[in-house]
Amino acid sequence: MQDEVLKRVKPSPEDRSRLLEASNIILSQIDKLAKERGLSLKAMLVGSAARDTWLAGDHDLDIFLGVSPDADITAALEVARLVSPEYEEKYAEHAYVHAKVNGFDVDLVPCYLVDDPAHLKSAVDRTPFHTKYVSSRIVGREDDVLLLKQFMKGVGVYGSELKVGGFSGYLTELLVLSYGSFAEVLRAASGWKACEFLDPEGHGKLEHAEPLVVVDPVDPKRNVAAALTSDKMQQFASASRSFLVAPSLDFFFPAKVMPLSDEELLGLINRRGSQIILVDFQAPRVVEDILYPQLYKAEESAKALLERNGFRLLRSDAGSYRDRAFLLLEMEVWELSRVSRRTGPPVSEAEHISRFLAAHDKPLSGPYIAEGRVMVEVPRQYTRAEDLLAAQIGNLALGKHLSGAIRGGHNMLVGPQVAEIKDDCFRTILARYFLAKQRVG
Amino acid sequence: MQDEVLKRVKPSPEDRSRLLEASNIILSQIDKLAKERGLSLKAMLVGSAARDTWLAGDHDLDIFLGVSPDADITAALEVARLVSPEYEEKYAEHAYVHAKVNGFDVDLVPCYLVDDPAHLKSAVDRTPFHTKYVSSRIVGREDDVLLLKQFMKGVGVYGSELKVGGFSGYLTELLVLSYGSFAEVLRAASGWKACEFLDPEGHGKLEHAEPLVVVDPVDPKRNVAAALTSDKMQQFASASRSFLVAPSLDFFFPAKVMPLSDEELLGLINRRGSQIILVDFQAPRVVEDILYPQLYKAEESAKALLERNGFRLLRSDAGSYRDRAFLLLEMEVWELSRVSRRTGPPVSEAEHISRFLAAHDKPLSGPYIAEGRVMVEVPRQYTRAEDLLAAQIGNLALGKHLSGAIRGGHNMLVGPQVAEIKDDCFRTILARYFLAKQRVG
Repeated sequence: MQDEVLKRVKPSPEDRSRLLEASNIILSQIDKLAKERGLSLKAMLVGSAARDTWLAGDHDLDIFLGVSPDADITAALEVARLVSPEYEEKYAEHAYVHAKVNGFDVDLVPCYLVDDPAHLKSAVDRTPFHTKYVSSRIVGREDDVLLLKQFMKGVGVYGSELKVGGFSGYLTELLVLSYGSFAEVLRAASGWKACEFLDPEGHGKLEHAEPLVVVDPVDPKRNVAAALTSDKMQQFASASRSFLVAPSLDFFFPAKVMPLSDEELLGLINRRGSQIILVDFQAPRVVEDILYPQLYKAEESAKALLERNGFRLLRSDAGSYRDRAFLLLEMEVWELSRVSRRTGPPVSEAEHISRFLAAHDKPLSGPYIAEGRVMVEVPRQYTRAEDLLAAQIGNLALGKHLSGAIRGGHNMLVGPQVAEIKDDCFRTILARYFLAKQRVG
Repeated sequence: MQDEVLKRVKPSPEDRSRLLEASNIILSQIDKLAKERGLSLKAMLVGSAARDTWLAGDHDLDIFLGVSPDADITAALEVARLVSPEYEEKYAEHAYVHAKVNGFDVDLVPCYLVDDPAHLKSAVDRTPFHTKYVSSRIVGREDDVLLLKQFMKGVGVYGSELKVGGFSGYLTELLVLSYGSFAEVLRAASGWKACEFLDPEGHGKLEHAEPLVVVDPVDPKRNVAAALTSDKMQQFASASRSFLVAPSLDFFFPAKVMPLSDEELLGLINRRGSQIILVDFQAPRVVEDILYPQLYKAEESAKALLERNGFRLLRSDAGSYRDRAFLLLEMEVWELSRVSRRTGPPVSEAEHISRFLAAHDKPLSGPYIAEGRVMVEVPRQYTRAEDLLAAQIGNLALGKHLSGAIRGGHNMLVGPQVAEIKDDCFRTILARYFLAKQRVG
């Protein structure tokens, strides 16, 4: 089975030479541009392309433009901008350039050439050290890395971007180096508990709150698995167990999820008999690592608002498609009685009680004593979840960019109205949401 | 104010002589009947009538027919049956007779004449000792007892029958004897905490779980306040506080609650915007002290069933009117999504997981991992509270008599259908339920 997988994910010699050729062209172009400007600048291919651990079909190149720690890094950014006419500037911790060159997606990232990862000036300065550490050690085990990456992709846990919260490429490489092979990683992961500790270079115990701690061989203070969420870690452990019991190609190549047709979507909404509330709005123009934490935070705030007011959620989601972003709230309880019980002070606190009674002097029922406290029954303001959310969405704890985007205008679609969004990408996200199928065992 | 109250609740000299006359006639009638039969039987007036602590308008006489502990008590019951042609036989711990004589409601209760309450053969054997204990001590404080009884009636905590769970007449007398006066009882009660202990004769600490413990002067092992619920105790404490701050006649004589008209009832149901589910059935022919514990138990079982299945109650009630009994369940959440989440085993328990997955092999969504556990989403059987209750009411933990009565046939009325019951007594119960107003402070 591993051969079958490798046949599909291992780059061919032609793929490899095309990639190296493209990379070399860009590297020498950068050298030339730097020389013309009298800049001391070292261009390097880093990441999986440099380590021969990239998956076929993956056309990403990571090229770093290193400058001396005391040099002006903006000159490197200037050079990056000139590599291709087809580029856009992005911003993570620092600015970088995303360009299209000969069909490759190229990230051109300025960094400082520090002598030791202990002296980083920016997080990206660590990457050249990772490449150096892995390149020499991984030789002969590249296929295991490819298998592990594809397995993780297939079961939905690959990618350390905050949208996913899964395993980074570097982490998969360290796992293969630590355990020896793809199969051994799966066997080890099968036995993972809620907290695991790995220390490839024996740097010693780190204090970390994360579920998986992998001490970075090149930077002992850093947890390589810091971005991994507990859910994704457990998903991987569970999928590993399941695969070892009954291996199948489906783990690597799950059936493609197709966008839902109107009919399928309305059928699902009807069968579930829940109430779906969708808040759809223009996505702010920021990278996903900035957008997604804000989306997830907004999702949590909306849930908390609804549950605090007595409604109940079945599940929820947040995401983006093309230039739009959305919150999806699926309600198990979306309608409440108008009358609601307000719990007052314990019966013995006479002073608090008079204040409580004064604040509720015309209740629908009460005051009466129950469970040792004074109670009144008063009308609640919002009896339907969507009304509460519509009224309060502007007051939620939203991130900086999302706050403006949502307040700037949003559509709230309820139940079958969700079908008004015809976008295929969105309909695929919905299909995945309704399926919610993971490999567990 | 106390004079004003006494003017209305203290029996006039004419009332008193009429009561004593009626009592004497019955007592000598019993003597005669016993003699005719050669029975050794002592007839006694007991209870509040014997102690001059009965409220005007109250036409109850408690007459006990005492026999020697080794005699046959059924002979006394035989005599009781002959006192009045207008009688019915009732049954508490033992059989007794309820008769109508000259406009009085007379309970004719056979008992054993034990030498000491430590040697009771039946709970009622204690009553003559209570009368003896109180009669000699209460002289001069009868008015305080009347005030306290009327106050407790007014605020809804008078009566130790299980339907009410409040204060017995004997308990009010002991409170007046302990604290000295009506006003002092209220002052003391104002300071009551969750647990209080009173021991008029210094018999020593009793181990009791009840909120209020009053050691019976005539039977040190007995808690006179055993039937008092925590809610009623706190209600009395709170009402006392409230009265002492702002005394008013309303505490003694609250406005009469009138039966709701169709229009009022439908208006209230509409304003509350809740869902009322009423289960109405033929009351089993048992005394209230047997009926009510079963009704309250059925109420709790129905609530537990509904809440266990995800519905939520605002409040509930159970009761009886004429020959009917009912459970009333007022729902805050009465409709749920068809889809429901089923929580499976923790992700690490592989064996349990395979069984869980096998039991849910065609879920609507999932399996997926959340909160460290495997989850699936499956359709729930009942999405509406009334459907669940209708299907499961026969399986509830119901008391012996109620079980037959409910299974034998019941009406389930939902929302405005409740107005189909036109009975004034029921409509008054509903009016009180919706008002739910207690004196608190």
